Amino acid sequence: MSERLVIIGGVAAGMSAATKARRLNRNMDIIVYEKSGYVSYGACGFPYYIKGEIPRIEDVIVRTPQQFAQQGIQAHVCHEVLAIDPTEQTVRVRNLETGKEFTDQWDKLILTTGGAAVRPPVPGLDLPGIFTLRTVEDAVAIRRWLEQERPARGVIVGGGYIGMEMAEALAVHGLQVSIVEMLPQVMPNMDPDMATYVLQELNHQGVDVHLDRRVEAFAGNGRVREVIAGGEQFPADVVIFSVGARPNNALAQQAGIALGPIGAVAVDDHQRTNLPYIWAAGDVAEARHLVTGKPTYIPLGTTANKQGRVAGTNAAGGEATFKGIVGTAAVKVFDLHVARTGLSEKEARVEGFEVETATITSSSRAHYMPEHPPLHVKLVFEPGSRRLLGAQMVGQEGVAKRIDVIAAALHAGWTTYELAELDLSYAPPFAPVWDPILVAANVANR
Amino acid sequence: MSERLVIIGGVAAGMSAATKARRLNRNMDIIVYEKSGYVSYGACGFPYYIKGEIPRIEDVIVRTPQQFAQQGIQAHVCHEVLAIDPTEQTVRVRNLETGKEFTDQWDKLILTTGGAAVRPPVPGLDLPGIFTLRTVEDAVAIRRWLEQERPARGVIVGGGYIGMEMAEALAVHGLQVSIVEMLPQVMPNMDPDMATYVLQELNHQGVDVHLDRRVEAFAGNGRVREVIAGGEQFPADVVIFSVGARPNNALAQQAGIALGPIGAVAVDDHQRTNLPYIWAAGDVAEARHLVTGKPTYIPLGTTANKQGRVAGTNAAGGEATFKGIVGTAAVKVFDLHVARTGLSEKEARVEGFEVETATITSSSRAHYMPEHPPLHVKLVFEPGSRRLLGAQMVGQEGVAKRIDVIAAALHAGWTTYELAELDLSYAPPFAPVWDPILVAANVANR
Repeated sequence: MSERLVIIGGVAAGMSAATKARRLNRNMDIIVYEKSGYVSYGACGFPYYIKGEIPRIEDVIVRTPQQFAQQGIQAHVCHEVLAIDPTEQTVRVRNLETGKEFTDQWDKLILTTGGAAVRPPVPGLDLPGIFTLRTVEDAVAIRRWLEQERPARGVIVGGGYIGMEMAEALAVHGLQVSIVEMLPQVMPNMDPDMATYVLQELNHQGVDVHLDRRVEAFAGNGRVREVIAGGEQFPADVVIFSVGARPNNALAQQAGIALGPIGAVAVDDHQRTNLPYIWAAGDVAEARHLVTGKPTYIPLGTTANKQGRVAGTNAAGGEATFKGIVGTAAVKVFDLHVARTGLSEKEARVEGFEVETATITSSSRAHYMPEHPPLHVKLVFEPGSRRLLGAQMVGQEGVAKRIDVIAAALHAGWTTYELAELDLSYAPPFAPVWDPILVAANVANR
Repeated sequence: MSERLVIIGGVAAGMSAATKARRLNRNMDIIVYEKSGYVSYGACGFPYYIKGEIPRIEDVIVRTPQQFAQQGIQAHVCHEVLAIDPTEQTVRVRNLETGKEFTDQWDKLILTTGGAAVRPPVPGLDLPGIFTLRTVEDAVAIRRWLEQERPARGVIVGGGYIGMEMAEALAVHGLQVSIVEMLPQVMPNMDPDMATYVLQELNHQGVDVHLDRRVEAFAGNGRVREVIAGGEQFPADVVIFSVGARPNNALAQQAGIALGPIGAVAVDDHQRTNLPYIWAAGDVAEARHLVTGKPTYIPLGTTANKQGRVAGTNAAGGEATFKGIVGTAAVKVFDLHVARTGLSEKEARVEGFEVETATITSSSRAHYMPEHPPLHVKLVFEPGSRRLLGAQMVGQEGVAKRIDVIAAALHAGWTTYELAELDLSYAPPFAPVWDPILVAANVANR
């Protein structure tokens, strides 16, 4: 009998694992159980689908179960795994369409149950018109609400990546948009000084931003009508609730799979869990942060795809490792491009580093070009060793891939001196002769 | 008496050296002699000035002699240095406006005489209407010719960076543009397979490209009327002659300063020449190529600025080194962004490397975005060691700074395995979840 690989969760990590395992091992049976009605979708595309820029939800689905079947991967949607038995090497599965339950056997198991939106016990959070955004079903429901209910006022709770993208999506639908954020700044992953540029852009685009306000309740008569936060009432015909993500760790806990301090599945550099023949990858799992050397939880699609490949390779009898992440992320906030990598200044302090910073404003083009939009760069580094710890950038172009140069520098473990030596490309439409990265590095090195 | 630093040549390297020396050393006398009428200009902006995108020539001049004077730097334009006496530590100088000659003494000397356009002995090359493009005077003369003579047909001799940018500049002025190139491809710094995309863009924009044609003569009656190349006649009311640059090494030769095999001034990592108290930097000098470990001659403004700083630091009594370059360059060809770093496939073979390549076409945005322009990536690497040797990219956006990630990888001396591990930024408007760099690295690692 051929070996049987069962994968629990069929989005980025799960389907990357399945595809890679199939490529390496032609004889293995590969079965994926996915609770939702879809596999292999690009969740990061949802705000653009809701905005209407991507016309159909099918467009963000990379491959269907039928397409996977042609590769010899059995992907079962609407199938929830209820329990894992690591000793018997079985899973208990419920077909959510028929209600029937069955037990399946596995030789190798990959846990890719992903993450879920954080939902604290706020009164009224279940009112119609309040949405979190994680699944295809969420995305479809939000766009339907916008198109059918024609809401006039949208409140976004949480000023992170999804909040930023959804502010733009709702604004495009003609809504008056407000953001309510618990912290004293938007974009909590950025330092306050860099987040200020984002706040300015939101204000410029007509978005009302209310900081330092914790949501106390939602009110409405059969559907949401207002958000109560910091004692104030904000009228709302639709609410996007996006205050963070947490690992879907219930199955792991039930099975005795070890979790890290943040509640994500602890994995080694082979994506192995503490139990034999069980790997984990993606938003349910930790990743090693290469700047701190410690496990961290930064759930992103890029990491999920890479970890999934590694888990799939190893489960299929190959050999692969995932060294870790440096915390690189980018987001478009209306006309502003925002990106970060490594540790922010405040994160570095929390991690116990001594911290120095160099912050400059240059441009994403030569200064003599008629249009030369400002580009803000902040470098975070250790004063003694000069070791680079992280960077943040805000501009109108040339931001996301410019941060990647610093991501590479963090992978290399460079100092600000080594950063300043880089032979970076130059042409007037793409950069000044001293690229903003070099300008920042030169300032750091003064 | 205070020490006296004389700098010969006042463009990128020279003025970087002067500025850095001034910052480090308040007491030194700093004198710059510049043959042309301008110092401190951004020569890379000339095509955009000629195109009309940059309105005034003053816009590409970073600082004037008057501004340098306020910093305590004496910058003399229209002053040609005729000879260097390294024993007496003097220079012989001619004021080109008055014709008067004088001798000046120096304690430290920095040679930043730059490069010149290659001008082979082609009959008719001196006809009015034929231009090379190196100096402010050249740029002004070309734009004046376009505006006053209203030429209908422009021929560009040489399909390199300047040729590409000038093709666009002339087309914007309404000219029918032809490119005549000696080699069987445009963009000789790219491999033929990648240069094909550039050729397609030129054709798409209505530029006639004639390859494999060496220019034999220019003909005309008092001004250029045609270009004769490969036995064929190409009508021309204006010609841009841009077949390469060579170091302005006459002064160095005269003074006994050692040149490298290509004729550029040989320098160590402190920008020192073989003679005491004499440094060289910029387009007159060599630079170490960090991939081959050998000196090379790739005259670019980015390198000139960095070398100038290092020469200025050391001449002023400080301590700085310039490790070298990896050959990074970018150019915009109409709507196409083109970039390269490291060695091309053919360069790597010439250097004696065993070569393997991985070439992919992905996109600069998530594939489900309604617009997701193609992005072509070619990686060049050593098959055994998997060491990365270079990369080329062509696309419509996200090219120049994406090549910089590979430039960083070359500085780090990485393999294709290390490249594939990078935590690169992702958001649907900026990249697919697998950045094209990672897609190419994964293909290389198969």
